[in-house]
Amino acid sequence: MPHIDLPEEYPGIRSLFMFSPVTALPLNNLVQTLLHDKETSTLTPGERELIATYTSGLNDCIYCANTHGAIAKYQLGGDDDGVKNLLANNVDTAPVSSKMKALLHIAAKVQQGGKKVTQEDIARARNQGATDREIHDAVLIAAAFCMFNRYVDGLATWAPDDPAVYDAIGKQRATEGYMTKPFVVKQPA
Amino acid sequence: MPHIDLPEEYPGIRSLFMFSPVTALPLNNLVQTLLHDKETSTLTPGERELIATYTSGLNDCIYCANTHGAIAKYQLGGDDDGVKNLLANNVDTAPVSSKMKALLHIAAKVQQGGKKVTQEDIARARNQGATDREIHDAVLIAAAFCMFNRYVDGLATWAPDDPAVYDAIGKQRATEGYMTKPFVVKQPA
Repeated sequence: MPHIDLPEEYPGIRSLFMFSPVTALPLNNLVQTLLHDKETSTLTPGERELIATYTSGLNDCIYCANTHGAIAKYQLGGDDDGVKNLLANNVDTAPVSSKMKALLHIAAKVQQGGKKVTQEDIARARNQGATDREIHDAVLIAAAFCMFNRYVDGLATWAPDDPAVYDAIGKQRATEGYMTKPFVVKQPA
Repeated sequence: MPHIDLPEEYPGIRSLFMFSPVTALPLNNLVQTLLHDKETSTLTPGERELIATYTSGLNDCIYCANTHGAIAKYQLGGDDDGVKNLLANNVDTAPVSSKMKALLHIAAKVQQGGKKVTQEDIARARNQGATDREIHDAVLIAAAFCMFNRYVDGLATWAPDDPAVYDAIGKQRATEGYMTKPFVVKQPA
């Protein structure tokens, strides 16, 4: 049961957006810029969603990991092999570029704490072709999901069990981005 | 030295805002809503800045802890006794209300991870008069600073040594809020 009185037909962060529209707006603006807008990063939306998915998995945030995993799948053309590998923490065997592996390694350090990122981590990413902008974006996406995951779990929101719910959210967000209203998801009885 | 090429006359998150204006805008909108706007919370701006300061101290983020400590001081009318106690992790002896102590206790749990917040933590805050809105705001502020702290330290931005620099930032932000441009702070030689 959530720690505060949230509209029960909405799961995860959607219940918090309904509870607090005043903070939902800047939070959705942030995630729209960070993950969805094509012109804000040279990482693809699919690659950025994978960083969000991986960080959420490391934080054990079921709702965020499944939601962004589903969005990543749609952004990557329907293939969820990358998502499955990252949620099992198998970065090395995930079907992503060497550059992405190095950026995911940085994301894992950020998840532990900002000061865990070393010059060697950065050098590895550079050696695989990552730009300053891409290193910046990977750090900020991982940091942002350390916020979103804590927001969702710190208030004990509920997470659907049905994979079809996440799939529907994934398709919606991959298509529409983050600035449209959440739809209603009926809570299990 | 920062991990990426940042404008060296700006410290901490200000260098990141100059590097990436496209993400600076939603981040500043978020912190303006969370910490500064009077109509968005029944916690005062000073109380909200104390939660940001305390979380930043727990994350050992020197730049954020000193900056928000200085803003809190100005928002609280010039008294920095609360800030000093919280940066020394002395919540129990800080000159804040019992409600704030319970909310700071929740913030410390959020800093460790969203799932660390227990029903007992929430009950304690309620018993001290905290509303759902205030519990929500404390969780989201602590979560947001788990992002900001990781962003600032994950890219190894520099933090001024001179307390006068933080004091100037504190005065500026307490007065103007977060939507005005940063001023130039010369980097130490």
